[in-house]
Amino acid sequence: MRVLVTGAAGFIGSNLVDRLLEEGHEVTAYDNFATGHRRFLEPALGSDRFTLVEGDTLDPGSLTRAARGCGLVCHLAANADVRFGIEHPRRDLEQNTIATYNVLEAMRTNGVRRIAFSSTGSIYGEPQVFPTPESAPFPVQTSLYGASKLACEGLIQAYCEGFGFQAYIFRFVSVLGERYSHGHVFDFYRSLRTNPSELRVLGNGLQRKSYLYVGDCLNAMLLAIEQAQEKVNVFNLGTDEYCQVNDSIGWISGRLGLSPRLCHTGGARGWIGDSPFIFLDCAKIRSLGWTPRLSIREGVLRTLDYLVANPWLLEVRA
Amino acid sequence: MRVLVTGAAGFIGSNLVDRLLEEGHEVTAYDNFATGHRRFLEPALGSDRFTLVEGDTLDPGSLTRAARGCGLVCHLAANADVRFGIEHPRRDLEQNTIATYNVLEAMRTNGVRRIAFSSTGSIYGEPQVFPTPESAPFPVQTSLYGASKLACEGLIQAYCEGFGFQAYIFRFVSVLGERYSHGHVFDFYRSLRTNPSELRVLGNGLQRKSYLYVGDCLNAMLLAIEQAQEKVNVFNLGTDEYCQVNDSIGWISGRLGLSPRLCHTGGARGWIGDSPFIFLDCAKIRSLGWTPRLSIREGVLRTLDYLVANPWLLEVRA
Repeated sequence: MRVLVTGAAGFIGSNLVDRLLEEGHEVTAYDNFATGHRRFLEPALGSDRFTLVEGDTLDPGSLTRAARGCGLVCHLAANADVRFGIEHPRRDLEQNTIATYNVLEAMRTNGVRRIAFSSTGSIYGEPQVFPTPESAPFPVQTSLYGASKLACEGLIQAYCEGFGFQAYIFRFVSVLGERYSHGHVFDFYRSLRTNPSELRVLGNGLQRKSYLYVGDCLNAMLLAIEQAQEKVNVFNLGTDEYCQVNDSIGWISGRLGLSPRLCHTGGARGWIGDSPFIFLDCAKIRSLGWTPRLSIREGVLRTLDYLVANPWLLEVRA
Repeated sequence: MRVLVTGAAGFIGSNLVDRLLEEGHEVTAYDNFATGHRRFLEPALGSDRFTLVEGDTLDPGSLTRAARGCGLVCHLAANADVRFGIEHPRRDLEQNTIATYNVLEAMRTNGVRRIAFSSTGSIYGEPQVFPTPESAPFPVQTSLYGASKLACEGLIQAYCEGFGFQAYIFRFVSVLGERYSHGHVFDFYRSLRTNPSELRVLGNGLQRKSYLYVGDCLNAMLLAIEQAQEKVNVFNLGTDEYCQVNDSIGWISGRLGLSPRLCHTGGARGWIGDSPFIFLDCAKIRSLGWTPRLSIREGVLRTLDYLVANPWLLEVRA
């Protein structure tokens, strides 16, 4: 089967490309390289089952050509920046909501009817139920990022009903691992490289968060795509644990042999729209036989080791 | 207070304009007259507290000028066509989602921070809980219309968190009454005027639906805007009853003195994305002291009487 992967040069996208090629699929990778990295696709470029298309999800013509002949679209391209939504509110609307509409239309034009989509646990806003199940009470959005992913989910679900699509919607916690290039481990490590004696922490550091290792995340996604049979299949993806931001700082500092002074900016939230507690109920994906192999701590440390071994990634972003 | 009403020449919008003027407010009416009617604004045009702006919600510049100096925006402009979403999927995205983004940005530019929004019970998809409360389990969308309104709700909520807005989100059942120009009473009456002996009914006629009289709807909206204090206030608006489509046909036929043969197209749903059972839990708005004055039957008959007295409305749409 040929699979179109949007956001293929990104963190999760490029890992997914490698896995799909390993499993024998043909892959069309689609990326505009705004935040993705060509180096992430180097292993894939060696395969004759791999096609790279440089294109933007806001370009319907290019997307439509890329989707031709595919049996599945894994739509991962997005503005994944949760923190700065209020500085550029149009970005989430365009790069997430409108882009997803374009992907769905490109699929419809080509008769492609299966889509896997990277949604987010942020869609639950500040939930009242922990761990939070997929059927949690109808949430109130607290970020433009979450709102835009909610809009994408709704569009995808409506295409399932209206046009006979089948969808796999994954609500991720924060994902960690090789090629990670965005998030707290990245930010903290980059900061400690510059100034090992002090670390600025957004909020009070007591925010409770859940993380998932990218390899475990891909195992879950591929299992669900293979086994889930409903028209609309929504899965939380996370570990059955959470940590505090301060815990993660301790693991990172310990691995680096540093004891930075912590300067907390204060408050229960690191930024406007930050959810102080993210902990998803993943019983549904576990019922398919999936279980994550890495703990949060192991995921954080593996991510840190990857960044230490790949300083180019910190420099290109600096 | 000056209130901007988008979709002001529409069914609910024009009734709201009249009510706001009655209560002494200044009103800026905004409409592109694509589906609205100038005749609906004739009473308002007699008031010196009324300003009419012909403009499109897809024109950010015009919207921004119109929002200047307002204390509240009642955003009712929308593609309200639930049935034909799959024939033109871009329409809901543009006229609902993107238009709402434009309204929010026009407000932000002008420092206007209170918004009332016409959402829909369709946002619950095909719910499992009846009557369906605002806190129903996270729904799966079944129509592009519902998906677009969900996207609007999410955007509005994110602006509340990010930019200090306060929102009143109303999830309506179908609304009926004077100036009604869209929906089953309209369709059935228009059809019976042409052919009184036969009536084509979408689905099996057993769909259970709830309806609300526009006067009751406006009472609820104005009460909530006055009294509800949360940052994000979501209210279901409906009656505590439902009827079958066949019941309504009986009332309409009876009032007209007709006994048409019914030709049901069959199936539990009238169209793709039709929810076979809509019945909202309205305890939250009732807790503010609101109660609807008209039953569904009374609302249907009052609507029919209005259409009989205003044949121009059927002709202009024919």
